[in-house]
Amino acid sequence: MVANPHLPVLLDLLGVFAAAVAGAFAGLRKGLDLVGILVIAVASSLGGGMIRDALIGATPVAAIEDWRYFATALGATAVVLLFTSRRLSDSKLKTAMEELRGRSFRYDRIAVVADALTLGLFAVSGTLKALDYHLPVFQAALLGTVTATGGGVMRDVLVNEVPLVLQRELYAVPAFVGGLLFGLMEHNGFVVRGYLASVVAIFLTTAFRLVAVWRDWHAPRPGAVA
Amino acid sequence: MVANPHLPVLLDLLGVFAAAVAGAFAGLRKGLDLVGILVIAVASSLGGGMIRDALIGATPVAAIEDWRYFATALGATAVVLLFTSRRLSDSKLKTAMEELRGRSFRYDRIAVVADALTLGLFAVSGTLKALDYHLPVFQAALLGTVTATGGGVMRDVLVNEVPLVLQRELYAVPAFVGGLLFGLMEHNGFVVRGYLASVVAIFLTTAFRLVAVWRDWHAPRPGAVA
Amino acid sequence: MVANPHLPVLLDLLGVFAAAVAGAFAGLRKGLDLVGILVIAVASSLGGGMIRDALIGATPVAAIEDWRYFATALGATAVVLLFTSRRLSDSKLKTAMEELRGRSFRYDRIAVVADALTLGLFAVSGTLKALDYHLPVFQAALLGTVTATGGGVMRDVLVNEVPLVLQRELYAVPAFVGGLLFGLMEHNGFVVRGYLASVVAIFLTTAFRLVAVWRDWHAPRPGAVA
Repeated sequence: MVANPHLPVLLDLLGVFAAAVAGAFAGLRKGLDLVGILVIAVASSLGGGMIRDALIGATPVAAIEDWRYFATALGATAVVLLFTSRRLSDSKLKTAMEELRGRSFRYDRIAVVADALTLGLFAVSGTLKALDYHLPVFQAALLGTVTATGGGVMRDVLVNEVPLVLQRELYAVPAFVGGLLFGLMEHNGFVVRGYLASVVAIFLTTAFRLVAVWRDWHAPRPGAVA
Repeated sequence: MVANPHLPVLLDLLGVFAAAVAGAFAGLRKGLDLVGILVIAVASSLGGGMIRDALIGATPVAAIEDWRYFATALGATAVVLLFTSRRLSDSKLKTAMEELRGRSFRYDRIAVVADALTLGLFAVSGTLKALDYHLPVFQAALLGTVTATGGGVMRDVLVNEVPLVLQRELYAVPAFVGGLLFGLMEHNGFVVRGYLASVVAIFLTTAFRLVAVWRDWHAPRPGAVA
Repeated sequence: MVANPHLPVLLDLLGVFAAAVAGAFAGLRKGLDLVGILVIAVASSLGGGMIRDALIGATPVAAIEDWRYFATALGATAVVLLFTSRRLSDSKLKTAMEELRGRSFRYDRIAVVADALTLGLFAVSGTLKALDYHLPVFQAALLGTVTATGGGVMRDVLVNEVPLVLQRELYAVPAFVGGLLFGLMEHNGFVVRGYLASVVAIFLTTAFRLVAVWRDWHAPRPGAVA
């Protein structure tokens, strides 16, 4: 169904990069050491894809079989560490550490954008891989949602926080909508070699998530329904 | 070994329904919004079966490949929300919310029964599927236990609670006993088309779990042994 | 590549034994009852290998298919309980319970050694199994790391603690180094039937981890880099 065999891997690697950036910031914020930061960046960036591949039987899973996945996660972590350590050395150490662990974490915006990009990239790559495994569009979008949210759930569970996916801002919804949209476009031959559909769906998913955070969109609580 | 190919799916879907009801109540109690409640209901009702299928290599896993799994989880969540929102609107809002998050949660009984039914249904469906994959009875019961407890563990980990399976009331034990009982009956041709063995094992597992909660049965602590 | 087909299973079972000992002590320390202790010992000793097998598609996973895995976990738990209950009955009950749950837990040393042995055994068995599935050395070491740390992460998440793998002492690093070392030795035919390479790599990994705990080695925090 997909004419270009490189597309799923390309989207996956971009997703791994974005997810590792978000994971490394989560580790920095928690005050973890370099190894802890690397572990959380790797687990959260490779976790979603591992779950996806195990669920459809695409084994050995790509994140283990293809060394570029680990290398990308490592590279993204190094970029975050270089970027922040240079910034951190400009100010006094104690203030920097407080800032890092405090509520006013200055890199929060980068982390939120990286997380939203992860959502878009993995929703589409997960849906695409499921379509390649001949799943119908709806089920493919469901697997895309699992792929997109799986790594973030692992990240939040590892650092002992209630996962974002359960909190008030919309998180799983943009992933599912984006995956479904992509699946429908792909299915109806709307695209040439999958690129256009991918770009549109990734952009819309990421934008949907960012607007949801920015405008504080969220689903109603059941109590408010009454 | 199983004459009726519909039985595993039927048991699975009933289990998904019961698990989603228990999951939706856990989400309500935590004060999650509608999407959070749906996410936790879906994750905890489809999670156990996904783990089971990934462990035996039944991929793509049924919970992704067969749209009825997701639809059943969605339906069960909708039923819980309709049922509780109507009740909630009868009383004053603030009281209702306090009640929902408080210790005196009035729907606790329904959630406990739904959770016990989940245990029975998934213990049997997991054992049955493992037997279909030619695992011996003991190992099949082990996989049944993983299936039955897996979703609940995911639910409890997601909402950041110590999983029920580690707490004092018996939880894993009824699942293993029920799975083993079913496996032995099935193996010895005690049944016609699997139905009788299923019903007996599900009933006994669920009853065992409910009596354990009701009578506060639990295993001794090692300290008390001394 | 591996001349001796019994080696992977032997290493696995030794790893399961060590991991179940570490898991049972974690359960004791948390004040769980006998069933809770068994559940955590089984989950943490079989979890890493289950993840490994699901990720490479070695299904049904060995921990379910081969009854010796569960039996070994059960046996290790029984040994811990017998050993500690005899010791516990020597002193007064209340003191013992306080001790068990308190910071001065007297069995901490055994648990740390068991955990370090788990790391070495599973790093090597995971790498070996990955090589058998024709993964290159680097990726095999990565899978060895997942195998070695996976069960411990499940244990820590289940009892609601931030996993060891994220904390300051080196944990994932010895596993990866040991797995890589083993993979290189195995790959270069340094060994006869895999035994020598296994023993060397297990010893070095375990020693590396123990020295890291003993000397309080840890990776630097990013702040300290600046």
